[in-house]
Amino acid sequence: MAPITNGRLLFNKVPTGYPVPGKTTVYDATDIIDLENEPLNGGILVKTLVLSVDPYLRGMMRAPESKSYTVCYLLRNDSGSPLILYNFGVGKVIRSENPAFQAGDHVYGILDFAEYSIPKDTSKLEVIIRPEPSLPYSVYVGTAGMPGQTSYYGWKEYAKAKAVRCLILSLKLADGEVVFISTAAGPVGSIVVQLAKQDGLKVIASTGSDEKVKFCKEIGADVAFNYKTTNTADVLAREGPINIYWDNVGGSTLEAAITNTAPGARIIICGFISQYNGEDHRGIKNMKYVLFNQLSINGLHVNAHHDRYKHEFYQLIPKKLASGEFKYTEDIARGLEKGGEAILEVQKGMNTAKKIILVADE
Amino acid sequence: MAPITNGRLLFNKVPTGYPVPGKTTVYDATDIIDLENEPLNGGILVKTLVLSVDPYLRGMMRAPESKSYTVCYLLRNDSGSPLILYNFGVGKVIRSENPAFQAGDHVYGILDFAEYSIPKDTSKLEVIIRPEPSLPYSVYVGTAGMPGQTSYYGWKEYAKAKAVRCLILSLKLADGEVVFISTAAGPVGSIVVQLAKQDGLKVIASTGSDEKVKFCKEIGADVAFNYKTTNTADVLAREGPINIYWDNVGGSTLEAAITNTAPGARIIICGFISQYNGEDHRGIKNMKYVLFNQLSINGLHVNAHHDRYKHEFYQLIPKKLASGEFKYTEDIARGLEKGGEAILEVQKGMNTAKKIILVADE
Repeated sequence: MAPITNGRLLFNKVPTGYPVPGKTTVYDATDIIDLENEPLNGGILVKTLVLSVDPYLRGMMRAPESKSYTVCYLLRNDSGSPLILYNFGVGKVIRSENPAFQAGDHVYGILDFAEYSIPKDTSKLEVIIRPEPSLPYSVYVGTAGMPGQTSYYGWKEYAKAKAVRCLILSLKLADGEVVFISTAAGPVGSIVVQLAKQDGLKVIASTGSDEKVKFCKEIGADVAFNYKTTNTADVLAREGPINIYWDNVGGSTLEAAITNTAPGARIIICGFISQYNGEDHRGIKNMKYVLFNQLSINGLHVNAHHDRYKHEFYQLIPKKLASGEFKYTEDIARGLEKGGEAILEVQKGMNTAKKIILVADE
Repeated sequence: MAPITNGRLLFNKVPTGYPVPGKTTVYDATDIIDLENEPLNGGILVKTLVLSVDPYLRGMMRAPESKSYTVCYLLRNDSGSPLILYNFGVGKVIRSENPAFQAGDHVYGILDFAEYSIPKDTSKLEVIIRPEPSLPYSVYVGTAGMPGQTSYYGWKEYAKAKAVRCLILSLKLADGEVVFISTAAGPVGSIVVQLAKQDGLKVIASTGSDEKVKFCKEIGADVAFNYKTTNTADVLAREGPINIYWDNVGGSTLEAAITNTAPGARIIICGFISQYNGEDHRGIKNMKYVLFNQLSINGLHVNAHHDRYKHEFYQLIPKKLASGEFKYTEDIARGLEKGGEAILEVQKGMNTAKKIILVADE
């Protein structure tokens, strides 16, 4: 087989606001790879099948001196070559010189935004755990992968949800708690919605389009609204007070949630997309409610809880997704050349569901 | 014995900024009481000995429609008479028609700011628990009372302090954690300082005068500074990052603390005196660090933890105070007519230590 083009998505420039496809990220088709003879030096050659596009990627597109909780993408390697973006993905091993992997294995973990790669660090890859083979690989980077784990781990660790307390002969003795979830149609938010409904809670869901509102209702949200056309604080004042807030947004949405908490409420800070691109830097002016209402606020990193909950996550969630008990949607971009646009869409909330780049079929 | 004057401190007007003695609070000497013959209707007649002056009293001086975590003082009763301020205090029972109390008993709980009173609600009073009779009654409304309980309960519940991990032949294997405490010379802060030192932590203490800085060092603070003359953020950047922040202040101090947290830090929100009098309403602009550093923030109400920790508090803390292992200071105003000034001083941080009104000797 003759050498072929290896399409790659390069990190070209730190964005000042939103990332700009073709400028801050650049699709490059100049790399040529000889799949049969490329030296592996003890490593593996992976064909990328799917890549996940997540909100936090914007946070990684920063100057290295800027502090954050994620690593940051570098622009150049030591010899001055441009560097490739990377994120969670699934690939197929084409050749292997590493005894932990065999040709034909499917691997899950951190992969380059490239059609083919020889990962420098295979410690971030594992042969994929796929308890439900009927689910496509794309789901294993979405609701059955890191985003779904984020929901499951955070819900188990911090929500302390109190369900409807007693049902005897259909007599409801006490209402369950009320949870508010922002970006509720995304892969993280939608699993939180479904975990909350499973626990018997009243769910208020906010999202950014009427289509996503419809999906939120399909997965069980009692109240779902488009925050671009409906005032969040008004909805919470009417439907709250809330006992749990799952925050993927920050800024004024967080402030509205804090004002509308019930005593003893829990707030899980999972993301703050309102601030990734410099749009919303207003301060939170109502922190006094943390005292008034004895709030508990926790910042959530999925990795911190992996060892504790990973096993039960893979036992429970893929099964629910495969059976249809839990629902998911995907918004698939075909081809790595659409990667820059896909990243921008997620930052602007223009994706219709969990954004996936389908790099190649098997 | 002839009827005598019963001095009282009335709530006269909701303040707009700081409370104004003589205007928002008024000392009144027009009430006459006949101690021998005043009808008790099954209640008790109490002679007030000491009253506690606490920062949160300002929060109670609000319009009833304004939401908060405390009850609020009312201006008039149903018949239009002005109403009396109240707070934690110690009094002596003069006469009793209630079998739970006997003449001569000392009671602790919520008392009117009056020289004598017949409490409407004796459920908020109890015969005082005074495991260390050598401590004056004033201490039982300070470090051995509600403020000290606030420190103890909050520290036990939320601090999760990690001390110096191992000392073998004076070889320190790992440093203990770093805690920052604002208003560290007060009755709450000073007990937190001493609990933290007992746990082997490095303590950074902020307070509002050089005299209070001196006290903070006496009780063990490793770093103590006057926030009026030294920049809090600079100190934390140099001496941090911090693993625990005990917040009695809110506003820009809270913001500086958040920026200087270590991963996994805990913040205990116990008060926000920077905002009680309308001085500091800037928003907290760095909530993203809650995610970055996986912070845990908790609002603390002392009453919520009373049942769990009260017993061990009374077993441990008065003993330490009586033996001198834990230190306390008091700033005593003599006479109820000085009550309005005492309240204002605490709001402005002009008190030199825990503020007590000594209403009468035994």
